[in-house]
Amino acid sequence: MKETWSFLDTFEPNFRPLVVIELAKGTKKETIEWFTKRIVDKKADGGAQLLIKPLVTENGDENIYLVGASHLRLLLGAETVGLVKECNDNSMRSFTYSSRKTFKDFADDNHNFLTMSECQYIVKHELENLRARDEKMIPGYPQAKLYPGKSIVRRLLTNGILLQIFPLHDREELKKLRHTWYGRVKIGYQPLDEIRSYFGETIALYFGFLEYFTFALIPMAIIGIPYYVFAWEDYDKYVMFATFNLLWSTVILEVWKRICAVMTYRWGTLLMKRQFEEPRPGFHGALGVNPVTGREEPVYSSIKRQLRIYLVSVPFVCLCLYFSLYVMMIYFDLEQWALDYHEEDKSTFSSLMLYVPSIIYAVVIEIMNRIYRYAAEFLTSWENHRLESSYQNHLVLKVLVFNFLNCFASLFYIAFVLFDMKLLRQSLATLLITSQILNQFAESLLPYWLQKRHVKKMKKHIHSPKTDMDLSLVEQINLEKEMCTYFGTFDDYLELFLQFGYVSLFSCVYPLAAVFAVLNNVTEIYSDALKMCRVYKRPFAEPTANIGVWQLAFETMSVISVVTNCILIGMSPQVNALFPDSKMDLVLTVALVEHLLLAIKFVMAFVIPDKPREIQIKLAKLEFESLEALKQQQMKLAAESLKE
Amino acid sequence: MKETWSFLDTFEPNFRPLVVIELAKGTKKETIEWFTKRIVDKKADGGAQLLIKPLVTENGDENIYLVGASHLRLLLGAETVGLVKECNDNSMRSFTYSSRKTFKDFADDNHNFLTMSECQYIVKHELENLRARDEKMIPGYPQAKLYPGKSIVRRLLTNGILLQIFPLHDREELKKLRHTWYGRVKIGYQPLDEIRSYFGETIALYFGFLEYFTFALIPMAIIGIPYYVFAWEDYDKYVMFATFNLLWSTVILEVWKRICAVMTYRWGTLLMKRQFEEPRPGFHGALGVNPVTGREEPVYSSIKRQLRIYLVSVPFVCLCLYFSLYVMMIYFDLEQWALDYHEEDKSTFSSLMLYVPSIIYAVVIEIMNRIYRYAAEFLTSWENHRLESSYQNHLVLKVLVFNFLNCFASLFYIAFVLFDMKLLRQSLATLLITSQILNQFAESLLPYWLQKRHVKKMKKHIHSPKTDMDLSLVEQINLEKEMCTYFGTFDDYLELFLQFGYVSLFSCVYPLAAVFAVLNNVTEIYSDALKMCRVYKRPFAEPTANIGVWQLAFETMSVISVVTNCILIGMSPQVNALFPDSKMDLVLTVALVEHLLLAIKFVMAFVIPDKPREIQIKLAKLEFESLEALKQQQMKLAAESLKE
Repeated sequence: MKETWSFLDTFEPNFRPLVVIELAKGTKKETIEWFTKRIVDKKADGGAQLLIKPLVTENGDENIYLVGASHLRLLLGAETVGLVKECNDNSMRSFTYSSRKTFKDFADDNHNFLTMSECQYIVKHELENLRARDEKMIPGYPQAKLYPGKSIVRRLLTNGILLQIFPLHDREELKKLRHTWYGRVKIGYQPLDEIRSYFGETIALYFGFLEYFTFALIPMAIIGIPYYVFAWEDYDKYVMFATFNLLWSTVILEVWKRICAVMTYRWGTLLMKRQFEEPRPGFHGALGVNPVTGREEPVYSSIKRQLRIYLVSVPFVCLCLYFSLYVMMIYFDLEQWALDYHEEDKSTFSSLMLYVPSIIYAVVIEIMNRIYRYAAEFLTSWENHRLESSYQNHLVLKVLVFNFLNCFASLFYIAFVLFDMKLLRQSLATLLITSQILNQFAESLLPYWLQKRHVKKMKKHIHSPKTDMDLSLVEQINLEKEMCTYFGTFDDYLELFLQFGYVSLFSCVYPLAAVFAVLNNVTEIYSDALKMCRVYKRPFAEPTANIGVWQLAFETMSVISVVTNCILIGMSPQVNALFPDSKMDLVLTVALVEHLLLAIKFVMAFVIPDKPREIQIKLAKLEFESLEALKQQQMKLAAESLKE
Repeated sequence: MKETWSFLDTFEPNFRPLVVIELAKGTKKETIEWFTKRIVDKKADGGAQLLIKPLVTENGDENIYLVGASHLRLLLGAETVGLVKECNDNSMRSFTYSSRKTFKDFADDNHNFLTMSECQYIVKHELENLRARDEKMIPGYPQAKLYPGKSIVRRLLTNGILLQIFPLHDREELKKLRHTWYGRVKIGYQPLDEIRSYFGETIALYFGFLEYFTFALIPMAIIGIPYYVFAWEDYDKYVMFATFNLLWSTVILEVWKRICAVMTYRWGTLLMKRQFEEPRPGFHGALGVNPVTGREEPVYSSIKRQLRIYLVSVPFVCLCLYFSLYVMMIYFDLEQWALDYHEEDKSTFSSLMLYVPSIIYAVVIEIMNRIYRYAAEFLTSWENHRLESSYQNHLVLKVLVFNFLNCFASLFYIAFVLFDMKLLRQSLATLLITSQILNQFAESLLPYWLQKRHVKKMKKHIHSPKTDMDLSLVEQINLEKEMCTYFGTFDDYLELFLQFGYVSLFSCVYPLAAVFAVLNNVTEIYSDALKMCRVYKRPFAEPTANIGVWQLAFETMSVISVVTNCILIGMSPQVNALFPDSKMDLVLTVALVEHLLLAIKFVMAFVIPDKPREIQIKLAKLEFESLEALKQQQMKLAAESLKE
């Protein structure tokens, strides 16, 4: 092992580029020198002890750097980030360098022990944790202040000196993954383990959830089809469908937790210890002392933040909700107008026109959702949350409330104010299908097409008709750095969440919704896979043990759907006919049934264990081992002390 | 420090008796010798390394032994059980012997660093963890099988060789505690910290909860009084009371979690790590291999247990519930009979007679509850649960379901079937007051009186009119070993839980219930304190961080009370008068209000943090420190590895 590593030392034979750093053009020389020195400096001197190499492009620009790391460095980094790997005895344990020999597939010369995405995650972690020591500012940029402990990379990013950091694609691996994932038409599961080792746990878990959810919808879809085919209108059948639906949705959400535990145990993230959360990049404030760490860092008064939330964000969200309701009323006017038009002139054209308001409204809803999303991001960022998790929670809450109202308000209005079941069914179908088509288009196909055009232009530019595989590293990086950045699974989950709403909230009126959801999800898997592999830069892997706040969101939706379905059934003429004498009895019965269903749901959620027995035993075993080790250590200590 | 300690070595000047062991009379000599040798044997030889001394009584019996431990041994034991103590910098940390100097009030000659109850807890833990090595049976008792790792004390207990193990009272401390606790009539808080250091956290937490709950009921009681005094019957006022009540009960349960966190942080139990749970004493099965520990120990098939639960326990509970409902119907017959009697003969006697059925029913309910309690214990024990926690959960569930129905079924019947608000109020009052009187009598006063009589008899027997303080150790132990054993806080919490039901389920009909509850609880504090100090043997301290399953039970009750109160208000003639035209509107409004209240409750429970900010920061600080320490260690290791 060499003692020193300079950034000019580009001839290291084992250098494997993992991460690309793009600096702004015209970054001062002294800044570059200082930054690269910090990256290659030894750990003991406060550096990251990584390898770095400039990418010399044809026109001689030197603003792109490739970062790698020695094999040993990566193994030590794996211990720092707390990676959990499989041992020789098939149990999962936190990797430590000293116990490396006990891990499965470990060999000193096996450079594939860590997957490429794990290596990239380690490099990213090390880069982000490269902290200022006694520097007061970034050399060459006096306005970019530093204080001891501040992450250098984050400061460079917020000051625009560092444009982006992204992990490199592995063309060969990607090709293999594409082939097994969506390269051939087949019925079967997705290669989740491969997706996980290429894209990381968060994305693999999203695809796992998407697949699971699609399979879970199939029974609902199958039961729903005869309702459409035979035009069943018996409400006892609808009641059965709705009851099945409600209990089913509880079961699938509980079972998901178990499946998720099995998967993340296999991937090691279930056992990964939470790291201490650093302030998020955008957080700013006056320099003060953090009460937890005792370090000097920006602090921002929690009262100020509360004021911003309650005096600005909450009123703004309310205003948006009001606006959304206002748009809804316009839609109803349009709907009325189309109906009148159809009454006057019963042509094919006019009966097609009946669907137009719904379609326009669906498009407007999608547009409003997207605009609101930006506003919510801006506001939440302005609220200046210290932690990424708190930022995410506030953002998710804002977005969910608005999207829920925006998408479902008109349906609630039709169902519980207008009592028009026919219109409800029609609206539901139009909204669901239009939003699905729009989403697929806006999310995957449009970016894919843009990306394809861009690649073509690039290839023309470099005047050489090569296939993807023959591209040189320089060309590959030039292509990848222009690709869109994938901002996480938020939008994908949101889409599923709204779909779940369409399927479950009014399921007893429109059993066919599940069929459309299944069809959409099957193509969604393909288009999302395409998007991940072709359209976006490779994202950094993000270890995670569950789908987080979305579990709660889906569970809340399933509680709300109990209420709506019970009311819908209670309102149906068929059920009304069962209580000819007393409407009171009807309402009381419906209320009783609703409470019973809710109680059953809660009991089921309580009774079904979140982790399968097998995983529970494995976790208990690990806990027992660590307690035993601690006890042994204490016993030894005690024996020594008592001998004194 | 002496190298060896024999059980005959009774002249150790520092020997302070902590725990009393009573063996069966006529226990074989070889058994006693083996057992005491194992207790004094060194840790390295598999012993407990404690001190033991026989108690020679007047008649020369030698079946009582006193167990103590050296100061050093106790400190090492404190580390083993994971005690958390306050440091010099006011933070709470797990005690370790090597860092002992950093703890507040620690000095090598300060024998009060650990409280007596902590020392007794440590001794108990060490005794229970005294495990068999290669013994196949208890010497002298071939039928008492042992296997490696089996707790010796538990085997001795189940075979009746060991009669009991209990901690000694500290007469002087107890007198001080009694004085500050209930010795003088005063308005003020209980000395919870003193209670905790004498009786341990579980009991202190019960008294803390009792006190908190009483204070929390005072606003409800104060608002309730004018309803009685001015005989308010306006339902708008009742609606206000009920709404306040429902939100209030959510708030108090959430705030309790915070108060509990503050207390247990101060006591150190909030930070205490969970120990690995050993099988409970009564657990039996064929010898097999535990999948978690890999040790040989009894295993019992989970399917057999499920069969016992579903084929025996569940039907039995259902039968009991049916029986309870049957008794209820008899009560209503009696009630009807009393009413008829009163109609015929309107005398003072007959109007008093109106209360008799309720009183009889209340007494019968109490008796049934107590009998059922034994049956539930027997059944749950027969279900053969491996862990104490799982045993407790099944027992609590069984008891709660039955007690809930037994106590409240008649009230539900009166309210929602008979619609008789006057009878409901009368029944509620009679049930509440009768059960309170019965409980106070059966729980504290009767045992106290029995105990007093017993002490008198004992004192007469030893022919010397001494006060408590002058009793010799022998006399003290002889007195204490005959005292009743305190079986934990289960019954006390259950009583509070049922009281909470009486107060909240029908609060809008009988606002005075809170007043009676407050009055009862004030005396309850005194009688429970009396019971703990005078009637029962000192219990072993039991570290705990919260009130466990009772929090969930109280929260469930407060959810149910939202439903009952909304229905009651909806049924009232005054609210009915608001909707003269349409009963439907009334029911829908009530249902809407109920759902809103439930939603508000859940949002409140979600929004109010379970721990105060200050405690959160302290916990985050500790976590940060331990993560930093780990990182430092890894960095050091990494630096060394990279230098190689």
